[in-house]
Amino acid sequence: MTRFNIILFDDFETLDALGPAEVIGKIPDLYHLDYYSLTGGVITSAQNLKICTRPFHEMDPKGYLLIPGGAGTRSLVQDSAFIQALAAATRQAPYILTVCTGSALLAKTGRLDNKQATSNKRAFDWVKSIRPAVHWQEKARWVVDGHTYSSSGVSAGIDMTLGFISDLHGKKTAQEIADRIEYLWNSDPTNDPFSP
Amino acid sequence: MTRFNIILFDDFETLDALGPAEVIGKIPDLYHLDYYSLTGGVITSAQNLKICTRPFHEMDPKGYLLIPGGAGTRSLVQDSAFIQALAAATRQAPYILTVCTGSALLAKTGRLDNKQATSNKRAFDWVKSIRPAVHWQEKARWVVDGHTYSSSGVSAGIDMTLGFISDLHGKKTAQEIADRIEYLWNSDPTNDPFSP
Repeated sequence: MTRFNIILFDDFETLDALGPAEVIGKIPDLYHLDYYSLTGGVITSAQNLKICTRPFHEMDPKGYLLIPGGAGTRSLVQDSAFIQALAAATRQAPYILTVCTGSALLAKTGRLDNKQATSNKRAFDWVKSIRPAVHWQEKARWVVDGHTYSSSGVSAGIDMTLGFISDLHGKKTAQEIADRIEYLWNSDPTNDPFSP
Repeated sequence: MTRFNIILFDDFETLDALGPAEVIGKIPDLYHLDYYSLTGGVITSAQNLKICTRPFHEMDPKGYLLIPGGAGTRSLVQDSAFIQALAAATRQAPYILTVCTGSALLAKTGRLDNKQATSNKRAFDWVKSIRPAVHWQEKARWVVDGHTYSSSGVSAGIDMTLGFISDLHGKKTAQEIADRIEYLWNSDPTNDPFSP
């Protein structure tokens, strides 16, 4: 059983985190979902959802990671205690997925340096400014570079997570999940209808 | 400011509730989102998400309601205390939205009798059996009957909520929200790619 750890923080964008969680949760025999924040306790999303989380230090360091975006990332990239703890949490993670401006948080740790990645197109200039050493891709629904996945805004995280499942477990499994959640999957990572 | 009350219960399907919440949360000047369960406290979704909720009795009776589906509905339709409380909560609600098997819960209260409604196609026979007095529609992404909206499975709730916003605030507003969350909106309620 692989741990799939969702990283949360105040003012995260609800669907960034929970769209992917919905997809991963459809393979409960393979993945155990858990929700973490730096110090644990209740985290409030940008949509006023209050979620109970466990602290980072209880996280299985070999679990997979998902990092959502949202308004909360704007101050969090400057929070060195958070960024250091996130860097430590990513060190042994076999796979890391980011949604929207979650890629700015991961970029800030240095983990994306010289790698290809993307983010929300509406926040793209800000995200690029956080870490110019990343090869930011402006036209992509999602980007894979090695074991790092990054998606464009909000709903793109669902497409990316289905793509991740497809890469690891086959396209049939991913399509079955999309069908079960009645989701019209944009399965082509280069098809980005929301780039300028 | 209109209260938009999301009804939660153990083993609800995460995206059923939080896809619509994401959409409604994009008009914070008009809608205040809150999350309720029968007796309040922590509710755990089918994807292991633990959410802090307020009890039904604290709900603004004139708020709009969203009722998600999920595995938890299977036993909940037989829980007369819950169904009675849900019936009371719906009495003055100007609009009620259901996603997936959430329509079975609303149907059980009698509130959908002689109305058109839909649900998840994979659970359709079960949903119909709960309340044959409802005019169940087998081919529909979502159905509007008066002030009641019901959608097909999971992701269809996002399409329906955008449709609801379109009906109340105009298609331009709905399309702007879809664009902001980078969601490819299936805006035709009769376009149901997942019906048999």
